[in-house]
Amino acid sequence: MEESRSARIVLGANQYGKAEVRVVRVRRDGPRHELRDLDVSIALAGDLAEVHLSGDNGSVLPTDSQKNTVYAFARRYGIDQIEDFGLLLARHFVDSQPAIDRARVRLTEHGWQRLGPHSFQRDGAEGRTATVTVTAQRTTVESGLTGLVLLNSTDSEFNGFVRDPYTTLPETDDRILATAVEANWRHQDGEPADRTATRDWAGSYAGVRAALVGAFVDTYSRSLQQTLYAMGHRVLAERPEIVEIHLSLPNQHHLPVDLAPFGLTNPGEVFVATDRPYGLIEGTVTRAAEETAGPVAGWS
Amino acid sequence: MEESRSARIVLGANQYGKAEVRVVRVRRDGPRHELRDLDVSIALAGDLAEVHLSGDNGSVLPTDSQKNTVYAFARRYGIDQIEDFGLLLARHFVDSQPAIDRARVRLTEHGWQRLGPHSFQRDGAEGRTATVTVTAQRTTVESGLTGLVLLNSTDSEFNGFVRDPYTTLPETDDRILATAVEANWRHQDGEPADRTATRDWAGSYAGVRAALVGAFVDTYSRSLQQTLYAMGHRVLAERPEIVEIHLSLPNQHHLPVDLAPFGLTNPGEVFVATDRPYGLIEGTVTRAAEETAGPVAGWS
Amino acid sequence: MEESRSARIVLGANQYGKAEVRVVRVRRDGPRHELRDLDVSIALAGDLAEVHLSGDNGSVLPTDSQKNTVYAFARRYGIDQIEDFGLLLARHFVDSQPAIDRARVRLTEHGWQRLGPHSFQRDGAEGRTATVTVTAQRTTVESGLTGLVLLNSTDSEFNGFVRDPYTTLPETDDRILATAVEANWRHQDGEPADRTATRDWAGSYAGVRAALVGAFVDTYSRSLQQTLYAMGHRVLAERPEIVEIHLSLPNQHHLPVDLAPFGLTNPGEVFVATDRPYGLIEGTVTRAAEETAGPVAGWS
Amino acid sequence: MEESRSARIVLGANQYGKAEVRVVRVRRDGPRHELRDLDVSIALAGDLAEVHLSGDNGSVLPTDSQKNTVYAFARRYGIDQIEDFGLLLARHFVDSQPAIDRARVRLTEHGWQRLGPHSFQRDGAEGRTATVTVTAQRTTVESGLTGLVLLNSTDSEFNGFVRDPYTTLPETDDRILATAVEANWRHQDGEPADRTATRDWAGSYAGVRAALVGAFVDTYSRSLQQTLYAMGHRVLAERPEIVEIHLSLPNQHHLPVDLAPFGLTNPGEVFVATDRPYGLIEGTVTRAAEETAGPVAGWS
Repeated sequence: MEESRSARIVLGANQYGKAEVRVVRVRRDGPRHELRDLDVSIALAGDLAEVHLSGDNGSVLPTDSQKNTVYAFARRYGIDQIEDFGLLLARHFVDSQPAIDRARVRLTEHGWQRLGPHSFQRDGAEGRTATVTVTAQRTTVESGLTGLVLLNSTDSEFNGFVRDPYTTLPETDDRILATAVEANWRHQDGEPADRTATRDWAGSYAGVRAALVGAFVDTYSRSLQQTLYAMGHRVLAERPEIVEIHLSLPNQHHLPVDLAPFGLTNPGEVFVATDRPYGLIEGTVTRAAEETAGPVAGWS
Repeated sequence: MEESRSARIVLGANQYGKAEVRVVRVRRDGPRHELRDLDVSIALAGDLAEVHLSGDNGSVLPTDSQKNTVYAFARRYGIDQIEDFGLLLARHFVDSQPAIDRARVRLTEHGWQRLGPHSFQRDGAEGRTATVTVTAQRTTVESGLTGLVLLNSTDSEFNGFVRDPYTTLPETDDRILATAVEANWRHQDGEPADRTATRDWAGSYAGVRAALVGAFVDTYSRSLQQTLYAMGHRVLAERPEIVEIHLSLPNQHHLPVDLAPFGLTNPGEVFVATDRPYGLIEGTVTRAAEETAGPVAGWS
Repeated sequence: MEESRSARIVLGANQYGKAEVRVVRVRRDGPRHELRDLDVSIALAGDLAEVHLSGDNGSVLPTDSQKNTVYAFARRYGIDQIEDFGLLLARHFVDSQPAIDRARVRLTEHGWQRLGPHSFQRDGAEGRTATVTVTAQRTTVESGLTGLVLLNSTDSEFNGFVRDPYTTLPETDDRILATAVEANWRHQDGEPADRTATRDWAGSYAGVRAALVGAFVDTYSRSLQQTLYAMGHRVLAERPEIVEIHLSLPNQHHLPVDLAPFGLTNPGEVFVATDRPYGLIEGTVTRAAEETAGPVAGWS
Repeated sequence: MEESRSARIVLGANQYGKAEVRVVRVRRDGPRHELRDLDVSIALAGDLAEVHLSGDNGSVLPTDSQKNTVYAFARRYGIDQIEDFGLLLARHFVDSQPAIDRARVRLTEHGWQRLGPHSFQRDGAEGRTATVTVTAQRTTVESGLTGLVLLNSTDSEFNGFVRDPYTTLPETDDRILATAVEANWRHQDGEPADRTATRDWAGSYAGVRAALVGAFVDTYSRSLQQTLYAMGHRVLAERPEIVEIHLSLPNQHHLPVDLAPFGLTNPGEVFVATDRPYGLIEGTVTRAAEETAGPVAGWS
């Protein structure tokens, strides 16, 4: 009976790859250098049953080789836009490995400001991201950003919410609204046949980022959900190449300190910024008529 | 034309809740105290379009109230097994909030060793986790663990893999195999009508953990994928109450140091443990005959 | 004999206080808000033997009160320059607490860029710091910065070093030089009697920071030590108000990747940025004629 | 005049070395393997003016060579007690490098529990540490531990403290006392001539750790300072080989949650564990008759 029960045990979904390959690429065509600084993570899926069941590695490209590929491609093709570099890598693995039918490459670019012809200062926590997924049938490109911390010191209220027996929160018509934006947006499918055409990824990124920031700044907020939707809506309204966006917005609570014990008022001036717990607001804004590709990567 | 394009923009999947509520519960019935130390994260979904579209909070239970509920329930019902505490919370939100049709509660328990009747020492990085998802139709309970770091100093090889033009890795028949186990396993569905019955969650957890550790220790490993499958298989073979398990195993590479420049051999004795990049092996082991519930939480 | 040995056990140096008080201060005199975002840590020392020896708290101002003082002072006096805010706090504790004869306040300011009249975007990892130490005899103000990551993609070599039997490093005449600057510099003592005079802390900070960055960019580097000294020297040469500076410079190694196995050269273009281990270069630059105050805080 | 001011600028205290060298050593004399897992950081000081002033590296042993030395020594001499391994390394640098007159080596050992002859599970966050400082005149060995989190759920009160205008904290005669112990203790000087004699570092460590934990558990605490002193005192009383101990104890506040709004009492049962701010209590316990060596490393 143990036998029969065990017999029904099977391998389900699986993938493997190299995570957090850090590559820095200097372009030194002349005295003015260019710098690209990336983390690259690769995940491959396909016909990988044998290695799980028997340990036979005959279909397994080592993750060490995947890492080497990142470095060799950085030299051979350079790195300009992370979406293009991800496409190169993902297509390479699907095309060259018979066992692999899906490759997903996630890239994070760390920004550097120029200080001189060959001198740079690293930007802060904000990162530009891309997730490229290639199968025989379809190529999906998502772009994104992480670690963009925004704050409005007024024009935010929170009223009219449900009051259940565990509700003690007072209503407020003036609070700080702050969040660390994590956003992923999916581009319209391109022509899979036309592999050499690149798009204006940099222009698209700049446009989406400006739409996100602009909507955050401009929206008089009655809830963080409303701000989230306004941000996503503006992106889709202004950027026809984007078909879907997912936003994950932690509510970085700033609580006004009660200064009455010290004989002081506190008219929205002194706050304690708390680490946790925090509200977490997640949502997707999409185009109704588009066929959607399923959840954006990172959404669970 | 801008109008018509905007008109097609709609709200997609969304959820909100309070994340990382830290609650410590002391049971002090007598001189010998008991301690529970949890992080609780709540995510609610349902008919939440209005708050996104207009900022009307009429269906929004504040995340602050969700936090209060955690503390009040800790007092009213105590905390014994995290699966039961999660079920209590998730059902409460679905039952009491008309707009909410799905509640997911994720809990991590930090262990403490007893030093005396009311004295404790915190365990390390390992955490016991649970993810409870309640809808009107179905209740799903996953248990899990995180931060369990295991190492075999021999009985691991890596041979016979694909060699493409970017492969430089030598084959090896004796290496260190080390990983930080992150595992989530789903329990058989119970009877949704029978809400008061609890199961032996503690016994189940201990059994699954022992199966995972035992399979890691016992398996002569030809690849980390093989070890992963052996771990998952043993859990399903030994624990009939588990229908599916997902494992995420980073390969914590230990590279033998080349000591030849110093006139020394290195017969598998001195290693540098690297942080990144790292191989990441992820896989699911499941029962073929079972209807599966879709991907386990945390799998992307 | 146990008695006599125990009798010789005494309390040595000690201090206590509240660490990492996070305060956000909004100045809203008009439609254009100003924002200050600080972490404040307080350490008090003095006649505190009794609380250690018997648990008598008669001389102990609770750390909770210290925290409250930060918030109350933020409201009462506002926060402009962190050096001034630290002086206010440190003097308050020494002046008002009979048992306390030394107060040290460390402050880190997180920067925000303006996006609109009441909208802001947080800067990155770089923080502006101050450490104020007040005793009855002396007031010391150190300013500093942390998390400033700088990189030169050329004009750095490393040659002519000691070669011992464990040296395998090749000499190089062109490498990447990168570091995360942590710097603390001490200001000339002021007149302790003149407590209301403030200095141009903002101007001094901007000048020191520009000197540090300028010297890093301009120096053709034969070693990170040389760059460190050039940075410290320029600060003292350009800023007469600074009497001493301590620099802690981790060498963020960027290793050129060997691409020969793939038939590729690598003329200083593709690098792996490693996390650890890292070289750590620490040094002080000071004025010979000045009486020094002893090591700068943070130097061990 | 600029000249004369610059002329007075001089190099002050400085040191350099390799930080966070991670070495894992397997002893495989038989089927039962032994494992040691260390982080090693080295800091060298001496006659290093020239490299700072001119970039001449003639006295500079590369940090890369220091790293290699760690690996080569791990193979040549093995790693048993971290104090001995640190002494080997520190003496080597002072003895072999003419320019170096002080070497400080800091080591952290990560523990692993045995699961089988060659299988291990990593312990948690607690680490055993050592700091060895060697000069021509003196050899100092400090041992320590970090990340030992202890909690008493009762037998702790906080009363009779100073109440100033900013004090709102209520007195309490029953609270949770929790802290993450960071301790460094200095051993009696040995005979510098006798370099081959080792001491019972393992026994000493076990004894000191037991004294720290025992004193924490046994002390009815009126303040964390009292507990700190009791811990330090017990170490010196029980361990004659220790001449001084420094303790840094963050007060991990556990605040009772006010459940009255929900019609519930909270008799010391439900707490929120906060991250920051936190009280930080630091103190030294020493022997009065001993000549002290100056502040223990890590104390600022």
